[in-house]
Amino acid sequence: MLRLRQKGAAVQKMVDTSGFTRIRRVAPIATETHGGRAKCLQRLIRLDLPVPQTVALSFDTVHRIAAGGMPNIEALLKTFGERPLVSVRPSSEVADWGGPGAILNIGMNDARHADLTASHGKKAANALYLRFVQSFAINVARLDPEMFENGKKGDALAAALKAYEDETEDRFPQDPAVQLSEVLRSMARAWEGTSARLLRQAKGAPADAGLGLVVQQMALGVGPGESGAGVIQFIDAATGRAQITGRYMSQTQGRDAVKVKAGAMFLTRDERGPSLEEKCPEVFQVLQDQGDLCRRKLREEMQIEFTLENGVLHILDAVRVQRSSRANVRIAVDLANDEVISREDAVLRVEPHSLTELLHPQLDAQDDRAPFVRGIAASPGAAFGQIVFSSAAAQASAARGEHCIMVRRETTPEDIRGMHAASGVLTERGGITSHAAVIARGLGLPCVVGASDMQLNTKDKTVTTADGSIFREGDIITIDGSTGRAFSGATEMREPALDDAFQSLLGWADAVRDIGIRANADTLAEAHVARNFAAEGIGLCRTEHMFFEDDRLVVMREMIFAKDPTDRAAALDRLLPMQRADFTALFRVMEGQPVCIRLLDPPLHEFLPRDRDGVRELAEALNMPVSDVSRRIADMSEINPMLGLRGVRLGITVPEIYDMQARAIFEATIEASKRGDPVVPEIMIPLVSAKKEVELVKSRVDAVAAAVASENGADFDFRLGVMVETPRAALRAGEIGQNVAFLSFGTNDLTQMTYGLSRDDAGRFMNDYVHKGVFAEDPFHILDTDGVGELLMLGAERGRAAHPDVVLSICGEHGGNPESIAFCRAAGFDYVSCSPYRVPVARLAAAHLALKQPVSS
Amino acid sequence: MLRLRQKGAAVQKMVDTSGFTRIRRVAPIATETHGGRAKCLQRLIRLDLPVPQTVALSFDTVHRIAAGGMPNIEALLKTFGERPLVSVRPSSEVADWGGPGAILNIGMNDARHADLTASHGKKAANALYLRFVQSFAINVARLDPEMFENGKKGDALAAALKAYEDETEDRFPQDPAVQLSEVLRSMARAWEGTSARLLRQAKGAPADAGLGLVVQQMALGVGPGESGAGVIQFIDAATGRAQITGRYMSQTQGRDAVKVKAGAMFLTRDERGPSLEEKCPEVFQVLQDQGDLCRRKLREEMQIEFTLENGVLHILDAVRVQRSSRANVRIAVDLANDEVISREDAVLRVEPHSLTELLHPQLDAQDDRAPFVRGIAASPGAAFGQIVFSSAAAQASAARGEHCIMVRRETTPEDIRGMHAASGVLTERGGITSHAAVIARGLGLPCVVGASDMQLNTKDKTVTTADGSIFREGDIITIDGSTGRAFSGATEMREPALDDAFQSLLGWADAVRDIGIRANADTLAEAHVARNFAAEGIGLCRTEHMFFEDDRLVVMREMIFAKDPTDRAAALDRLLPMQRADFTALFRVMEGQPVCIRLLDPPLHEFLPRDRDGVRELAEALNMPVSDVSRRIADMSEINPMLGLRGVRLGITVPEIYDMQARAIFEATIEASKRGDPVVPEIMIPLVSAKKEVELVKSRVDAVAAAVASENGADFDFRLGVMVETPRAALRAGEIGQNVAFLSFGTNDLTQMTYGLSRDDAGRFMNDYVHKGVFAEDPFHILDTDGVGELLMLGAERGRAAHPDVVLSICGEHGGNPESIAFCRAAGFDYVSCSPYRVPVARLAAAHLALKQPVSS
Repeated sequence: MLRLRQKGAAVQKMVDTSGFTRIRRVAPIATETHGGRAKCLQRLIRLDLPVPQTVALSFDTVHRIAAGGMPNIEALLKTFGERPLVSVRPSSEVADWGGPGAILNIGMNDARHADLTASHGKKAANALYLRFVQSFAINVARLDPEMFENGKKGDALAAALKAYEDETEDRFPQDPAVQLSEVLRSMARAWEGTSARLLRQAKGAPADAGLGLVVQQMALGVGPGESGAGVIQFIDAATGRAQITGRYMSQTQGRDAVKVKAGAMFLTRDERGPSLEEKCPEVFQVLQDQGDLCRRKLREEMQIEFTLENGVLHILDAVRVQRSSRANVRIAVDLANDEVISREDAVLRVEPHSLTELLHPQLDAQDDRAPFVRGIAASPGAAFGQIVFSSAAAQASAARGEHCIMVRRETTPEDIRGMHAASGVLTERGGITSHAAVIARGLGLPCVVGASDMQLNTKDKTVTTADGSIFREGDIITIDGSTGRAFSGATEMREPALDDAFQSLLGWADAVRDIGIRANADTLAEAHVARNFAAEGIGLCRTEHMFFEDDRLVVMREMIFAKDPTDRAAALDRLLPMQRADFTALFRVMEGQPVCIRLLDPPLHEFLPRDRDGVRELAEALNMPVSDVSRRIADMSEINPMLGLRGVRLGITVPEIYDMQARAIFEATIEASKRGDPVVPEIMIPLVSAKKEVELVKSRVDAVAAAVASENGADFDFRLGVMVETPRAALRAGEIGQNVAFLSFGTNDLTQMTYGLSRDDAGRFMNDYVHKGVFAEDPFHILDTDGVGELLMLGAERGRAAHPDVVLSICGEHGGNPESIAFCRAAGFDYVSCSPYRVPVARLAAAHLALKQPVSS
Repeated sequence: MLRLRQKGAAVQKMVDTSGFTRIRRVAPIATETHGGRAKCLQRLIRLDLPVPQTVALSFDTVHRIAAGGMPNIEALLKTFGERPLVSVRPSSEVADWGGPGAILNIGMNDARHADLTASHGKKAANALYLRFVQSFAINVARLDPEMFENGKKGDALAAALKAYEDETEDRFPQDPAVQLSEVLRSMARAWEGTSARLLRQAKGAPADAGLGLVVQQMALGVGPGESGAGVIQFIDAATGRAQITGRYMSQTQGRDAVKVKAGAMFLTRDERGPSLEEKCPEVFQVLQDQGDLCRRKLREEMQIEFTLENGVLHILDAVRVQRSSRANVRIAVDLANDEVISREDAVLRVEPHSLTELLHPQLDAQDDRAPFVRGIAASPGAAFGQIVFSSAAAQASAARGEHCIMVRRETTPEDIRGMHAASGVLTERGGITSHAAVIARGLGLPCVVGASDMQLNTKDKTVTTADGSIFREGDIITIDGSTGRAFSGATEMREPALDDAFQSLLGWADAVRDIGIRANADTLAEAHVARNFAAEGIGLCRTEHMFFEDDRLVVMREMIFAKDPTDRAAALDRLLPMQRADFTALFRVMEGQPVCIRLLDPPLHEFLPRDRDGVRELAEALNMPVSDVSRRIADMSEINPMLGLRGVRLGITVPEIYDMQARAIFEATIEASKRGDPVVPEIMIPLVSAKKEVELVKSRVDAVAAAVASENGADFDFRLGVMVETPRAALRAGEIGQNVAFLSFGTNDLTQMTYGLSRDDAGRFMNDYVHKGVFAEDPFHILDTDGVGELLMLGAERGRAAHPDVVLSICGEHGGNPESIAFCRAAGFDYVSCSPYRVPVARLAAAHLALKQPVSS
């Protein structure tokens, strides 16, 4: 036990051992031992704010209480003087971990009620007693809450006391020490209960997270003069912009002004009703000053709970303002601009993942309708529109200026134009890195995949849900790619917020980060997004999508069906100017920044038609019998196309294609140079598994470069590199990396091959696997550092050892994840490349890493 | 230069520096400096055989001659006495590397011709001179051979001399020293020519392989008394059995008796004509004695070249008998049984790959018809039969007792029964480890895959070759799976030779080898083969093939289409006794030897019908509409089945299947025990990529084992292990191997995933890739030690480190290759498992390794 009136070190020691501490300016309180609220209250006291006397109980003490112990309550109460009324509030290490609700007016009993009736009036005395009886009965004695609901004011107290007696067959406890110890025990036990523990563990709390409690002298808020309670904050929680927000209500306690609303007054002058500013201008001015003091000294936007007791202001508590992701960015930036915090601190205060919300339209968080199907959240953002079942219908809808959601079993490269036209994509199959998901993220298009509980009938053009409802083409649905849900009908959206605060924050992040961030971009639209998000170049430009546009697809198919090298050369000659135009435009958008172009990767059969009509059209275009065309298509089909004739294997088997692509790149490079935007293009060879593959392609690319240079009398540089996406390429990175400028690890395919797992087919069981804990995470979503990661490390080490200047990067879907960036940074990679819409997240995550784990080199 | 009559160390030194050495008993000649023939001749001299005086020229000397130098020819000739006649023969390090032909009778000129006419008669003198003039003109002066063909005997010499003078405008050289130096120069230069070098490098000679030459005093073979020449050997070159073979012809030189034949006599008594045994019984007896001496002292079966000069026997040369693989085995075994060589030497004398020929019928090596198509040699042996295009037709053909060759685009598991019925398989697609190839090797069935130059039309039932010929169903063709060729019509075959010599040799191999050899066997037939070839158990029993038999396939499909767990359980209950019977029979064949059973691996859709009829049948069986069945089948299809829902993923998603299989295994184990053949079954989990997968399956298998044990009141042991076939499983072998009994590396899938290369689709470009040197070898054929091998090493090291007792093995297609066995042995693996027909090769290869590279542990 502690004698609080004594001073000095010896006393403090006793304070510690007895488990409760009167919070003063001295004897620091630690968040780790007493919780955040206790710590914050000490800060307020140190700022000389009018905080009623407060005592803190440590985690240890509360834990002992839960186990049956109890500190000396008489002594504790005595620190508050004679016959005090007190409140108890939880003080956990992190506010978000929850805790039992506050209990006010402990110490109220019949005797105090009588006294207060005399001094404050019957109404106030009743209110104070009733509030305590209700709280105690419901939260401590665990009686049925319905029995203690407010009835008519006059009868309520008596009724509550009677209900308590009826239920417990005992009188309502009159001894304040008994009241307080019961409250403390109840709160301590509630914290240790299973449901509370699971709830806070879900929010990231450790299993042994402790609870502190603060016992505070009541400021009454009811009674004579201007008495009441309110909360005030100085910013808008949704936008983060400066704006005094909150409510005040006379003759109330706690947060009634916010909860009840009816009868509450505004804080600032407002035409809609009375305000504290008008009613108590001095108090309001003090509140504003104290709020400003809090902001500067606590270096945070706080919500302050205050009470007026007969005109005297008391500050009971202050908590960090709950806020939207968007508001959080502005608050951090404003604090830094006001020099309250450093720019680095501002950067660290924004969680990288939280930026995603700012980049796309979002469903209103309040919207709690039931989705008609759930799938995998494949590309963030929300969208609504009419259901369409084909790429053609999506384009038709876009042509009519109508929003549409493309619904497919799964998407193929042929659907890309439809995806460009659609507002969102919903697929029955596929996982987080299925075609639909990858493309949608690239386009910044909301996307839900693997919604396997719905049945798609493309012939009838219907979607049947698990409960048998049927959607038809043209029906309006909303999808939420951030949560993987789809809803019937349209919905209100919050628009993206790429404002000045956002730009400032990312600028500050760029100033500190030490790993490069590029974007994966195949199209001009994506390149524009990449530029807007300040990506440091394009880390992966897939060239295959360029061949799916109508006029090119026909030529591409002619090339594939060429009877002999002459025919093939003729088709490639027609593709060359188109491809050159692609790169010229791309270089123009990127204004001299590096652009890493991957040579053609997919198997050629992906460019061939799959349906009867397409085959007939092709037969007409080629002037061949349908049967011959069908046979050729069948001949080219593969059992496992992922592991077939594609990538560099294609480049070696039909080298003219890469020749054409290299020529297009070099000619575009010369044009860019003439235009005054000189660029050093990067050419990347996909799917390498042996050194010799690189040598063969390199010698042909070098030859094309020499030819283009001599034909044009122009000199240019370029870099040739390898996409490391087979386990063998990673293992052999030493010899493969020796004569190339860069090694870029394609973590999508590398993950597929390391696990022996197709991302297109994994959707069927991945949820089950993650649910059962077979895989801790979907390895296509979170980089598997144990397996795939080891190959990255081996590849990086061996590549660097053989060729110290080789540039290392990753360009798979994982590129934008903070976890992957941490991994790559630790492994000494030069940059990561990710979907353009992930670039802001990646820039911020990289800055966090640089600030949290500075590297010596 | 050397004075040969002097003796002692100083002289020998001079001998060495002057570049030629008279071969005597002392001063050893080395194969590495003077070649095999010189070395052998010294051995014959040491055996006191009547070898004419011989001088050896070293590799260095011959190299200097080619460069323009020349030893002192006068001195060399003087070692043979006055006016000698000599021959020159090549002496390379390995006889197989070739060399210029022998030249006889050097020293013949007009003067010697006159003398010999007097002493030996005109005919003999003419023959000796003419032979030399012809050889010199053709091989040294490089004149047109047609001009020096034998005309009428009387005119031939004069005509040849005149032709020589006309062509060279010079007289035929008369100085023996000039003759000899020209011969030596010509032979030396021929050896260094490009075509000779390429030829011998193709046979494995190093780029700087040297040529030695031997100069030997002529034994004339023509002239008075019994003069003539012949060759003798003491075994049959085709069978290896003891049998005196060879020919002798009077009044001839060199190997004329063998080449000309007409006029040659048999060696032993023969009813078909005269024999040396009858004509010169004493000489014949001496030859026999000397042959026996050679065999014992040279420890080899030699072919001896001999000459009779006026009744006196000379042994000119002896070379190792050229022989078939089969003969080589018998010769080695007989030599060991006669205690001429050790059993270990006998083992080392047989090249493991050469055994393959003995295991299957072979095409006659003399058959040089042109194949109608070439493909990949996928499973050795030859077969002929009628073309059939379907599994059903193959079975019908077998039912009629007719041989057939099954011709398919590629095979699927549904074709297995057809393959059992066929004599051979020919496919248009696929590589060395395609389905057809793997199954055929297991069945010991000749197979050619990837014959992409033929066009298969399954509808018309025709095969069209590159030159436009058409084969129809029923046409007879022959395929040679050892060379990858297919021929029109039937062909003579040599039957397999698994005789006592073969068995002895493999028994001796087993006595020395130090790594286990098991067989991959899925069927009883394969298990029988495995037993016959003395495999030490089954290393991989794939269970999927068991479900393709008609009665089971229906039940399997019902299981796959089960509406709920109850339906599924009912189907599995019907499969259980069938599966139990499979294992019971297998355990019976293997008589207590270990059997490693892989739980179901392929995706379930492999068991579903692909064609319209099959779907309709299934719809009938399931009493469902065809459209529903089609939809379900489409739903289950996968883009990359290799990387899809199969293996342990299936085991976790539908755990009842593995439960059933485990129960069948355990119940069969109990039956085996009751029968008196106790077995410890091994259960292998396929396609593992994470530790937790193993834990989940292990806990269920353990539970099934406990249940079966308690139901039967029986105790049994089993081992649970993991098939390591994903790169991740190899990398994580430490944690994966910790709680399992064994890790068996499936190198087929591991190669596919390490390269990102499907064996089914690789056929399309693998030939091109190997041809261009992109891959040194087809990695599905020869283990890629650099990439896949590193994963094997890492996996083995990590598995052993975490669990020192874990049993390590490989069970992929590579298991039987000597190279893979060497790799696994070096890495400390316990056994390799291979196709049953590869077991003998593997046993012998392992023995070679143990003898050549003994390990200290």
